[in-house]
Amino acid sequence: MTRTSADLIADRTRLLGAKVTTFYEEPVHLVRGEGVWVWDADGRQYLDCYNNVPHVGHCHPKVVEAVATQAATLNTHTRYLHEGILRYLDRLTASFADPLSMGVLTCTGSEANDLALRMAEAVTGKRGIIVTDHTYHGNTTAVAALSRTNPPKTGDGSHIRHVPAPDSYRPLGGQAGAAHARAFAAEVQRAISDLEEAGHGFSCMMLCPFFANEGFPDLDPGFLAPTEAAIRAAGGVLIADEVQPGFGRLGSHMWGHQRTVCAPDIVTLGKPMGNGFPVAGVITSPAVMEAFQETFRYFNTFAGNPVACAAAEAVLDVIEEEGLMARAADVGAYAKTAMQQLAAQHAVIGDVRGAGLFCGVELVTDRASKAPAAAFTTRMVDALRQDGILLNRLGIHYNTLKIRPNLQFSRAHVDQMVEALHRALQNTPIQA
Amino acid sequence: MTRTSADLIADRTRLLGAKVTTFYEEPVHLVRGEGVWVWDADGRQYLDCYNNVPHVGHCHPKVVEAVATQAATLNTHTRYLHEGILRYLDRLTASFADPLSMGVLTCTGSEANDLALRMAEAVTGKRGIIVTDHTYHGNTTAVAALSRTNPPKTGDGSHIRHVPAPDSYRPLGGQAGAAHARAFAAEVQRAISDLEEAGHGFSCMMLCPFFANEGFPDLDPGFLAPTEAAIRAAGGVLIADEVQPGFGRLGSHMWGHQRTVCAPDIVTLGKPMGNGFPVAGVITSPAVMEAFQETFRYFNTFAGNPVACAAAEAVLDVIEEEGLMARAADVGAYAKTAMQQLAAQHAVIGDVRGAGLFCGVELVTDRASKAPAAAFTTRMVDALRQDGILLNRLGIHYNTLKIRPNLQFSRAHVDQMVEALHRALQNTPIQA
Repeated sequence: MTRTSADLIADRTRLLGAKVTTFYEEPVHLVRGEGVWVWDADGRQYLDCYNNVPHVGHCHPKVVEAVATQAATLNTHTRYLHEGILRYLDRLTASFADPLSMGVLTCTGSEANDLALRMAEAVTGKRGIIVTDHTYHGNTTAVAALSRTNPPKTGDGSHIRHVPAPDSYRPLGGQAGAAHARAFAAEVQRAISDLEEAGHGFSCMMLCPFFANEGFPDLDPGFLAPTEAAIRAAGGVLIADEVQPGFGRLGSHMWGHQRTVCAPDIVTLGKPMGNGFPVAGVITSPAVMEAFQETFRYFNTFAGNPVACAAAEAVLDVIEEEGLMARAADVGAYAKTAMQQLAAQHAVIGDVRGAGLFCGVELVTDRASKAPAAAFTTRMVDALRQDGILLNRLGIHYNTLKIRPNLQFSRAHVDQMVEALHRALQNTPIQA
Repeated sequence: MTRTSADLIADRTRLLGAKVTTFYEEPVHLVRGEGVWVWDADGRQYLDCYNNVPHVGHCHPKVVEAVATQAATLNTHTRYLHEGILRYLDRLTASFADPLSMGVLTCTGSEANDLALRMAEAVTGKRGIIVTDHTYHGNTTAVAALSRTNPPKTGDGSHIRHVPAPDSYRPLGGQAGAAHARAFAAEVQRAISDLEEAGHGFSCMMLCPFFANEGFPDLDPGFLAPTEAAIRAAGGVLIADEVQPGFGRLGSHMWGHQRTVCAPDIVTLGKPMGNGFPVAGVITSPAVMEAFQETFRYFNTFAGNPVACAAAEAVLDVIEEEGLMARAADVGAYAKTAMQQLAAQHAVIGDVRGAGLFCGVELVTDRASKAPAAAFTTRMVDALRQDGILLNRLGIHYNTLKIRPNLQFSRAHVDQMVEALHRALQNTPIQA
């Protein structure tokens, strides 16, 4: 007998605790997924416009087959020799520019970022870290402390400095383009000086090159150039967290930092890497790796095991064989145009942004003042869920609809999503 | 064409770095596993007496089937409702005494321990941590800092205190039994006082209740009673790291802390939980969970996903259906007797210890002085590998053979292993 949502919610409170949240006012009880679709326990079908973990499609048969076959063959750790991790890292590192040619595999993006911070510390001998004030880099003690949106109430964060998240809709100092880039770099420079004065020294800046959690601002290629120059001048390390933009999602490039045009010393990978199998990693240069291995010992039992690498390699296969990066470019551009047309009909859409299959609209109560329509955005998300469309909101003001479907998304799916957006915009009252 | 071990070692140096080590002087290139057996690329078969991750047997068909079926059905995160995590936590928590009734799933034991430290901090408002001087609790920044055997060269460890690892072969103060227990508790009390005087306050003691990395000393049930009393009196939290002894390995009990007779506030789980699928977790009481959720936000994308829970539930099924805990008790006792008989023939065996399928012998150059035969132990491990027996060494002096096979190990496998041990003890020179 299928249990009701109320039963499951009660069980969650009893077993997971009262504060473990679900998406949506009325949570969705999922039982099946395929391609861009998921189904709930009542057989209702939803268009998944949100989940980036099943990067090449929910339950992609090629990835499932790779996992099943390898799990039935061998699954041990990397203290034995195995081709899997080597073949995968060879293929993966080929997608990065020199000198990013080495890797450490982990199980989660959080573990990858936690490790990247230690790599920076090993290189610089310093502990000071700079991040934006609206970022999220994971859940370990070391990286959870970076988050200002949900800061831990205890622990030592004295070595962390926050800079204002870039916002192309409301740029620092009111200027777009190169002035915006310089204003951001000036904030980073101030933070570097502050860390040095406080005695922590400057170790690294960690950033998502797409600034995904910050609301994926539309930034010029080269936006990060003055910031990178400031980091280099101070002897610091640049870490690109590619957990969200990586693996071809942005359409134009395999990695977010290639689109933004910067040269990180360390790149971290996560969510989409194994299409749901827990695999993640850090890519870096021989010089950084050597400094890291001189300073820290690291071994991760599950990481890089033959099953994880089989899943990850199958993901690369599918991206290539099915041309999913080009598809992300085409479908993403189509979606952006459709949303711009929608903006012509709905004044609440203040901005349309994104790249490839990571895009969305920022909702405002007034285009002149750009006042965020945050509560309205939440109601939109719930209305869309009721209409069979799963997406969510994010950004500095939590008023940006986050459209981040897997790479099987097509123009027909965009049409269906945009029609639903139109209905929800028409039917959702601006004031609750 | 199968690549040679030399090719793979060169690739590892190029892709993973020069300091990523393998087991054994001549690393093993594994290609297949089944039950207690693994095979190398040349078709040679090895008896795996070491790996605890494939807990119910390498590539157990029931676990492989559970993973394959669920991976083909649905794999999303826990912000949607799904029965998998709830059914699993219901079954899992039933194996713990009250009030340990709630859980957080993670992907790795390191993540679980990292989280447990934050739970203790949330409960106590303090940061001071006590561990033994020969422990290892994982690889995140926060838990890697606990290890004194391979301490990071940088970072802040001022809030950590180490107590001497219990050693039943060379007990503190020279006395066994209750006196040993009191001597250990006195060290813990000293560390508590020191943390309080230093201004850190006392948050928690984290320990493996089987003291696995310390060399699994033979301790009386109740050994931890005076230590637990000291922790309670100081308002601290006791964390039991069950990553190694848990899931019935010890034969007599499902969990190490049940055998050692202590009542941890928090229990962490890892390696064997998913038979190789990356799943781990923290079990605690409603009171600790509430304090944690008040203080920290935690979400882990891959953790507790339907595939992870399917793997973990299949492991519980197999343990029950195949009576693997009783088997661990029977085969482990048989192995211990066989090794005691071996000790009668080989003076280099100073001590035979263990419980269930976690046992071994401590090797000494002289029984009177108990001088560790560490280099000899390393040569033994390599000789056994050449003879088709995979195991390893650990302990305070790295002179203890670590026998920790999966739970499909039988009396016949013990016979084969002990015959090989006998050969290796006869043929390995005491001096290199």
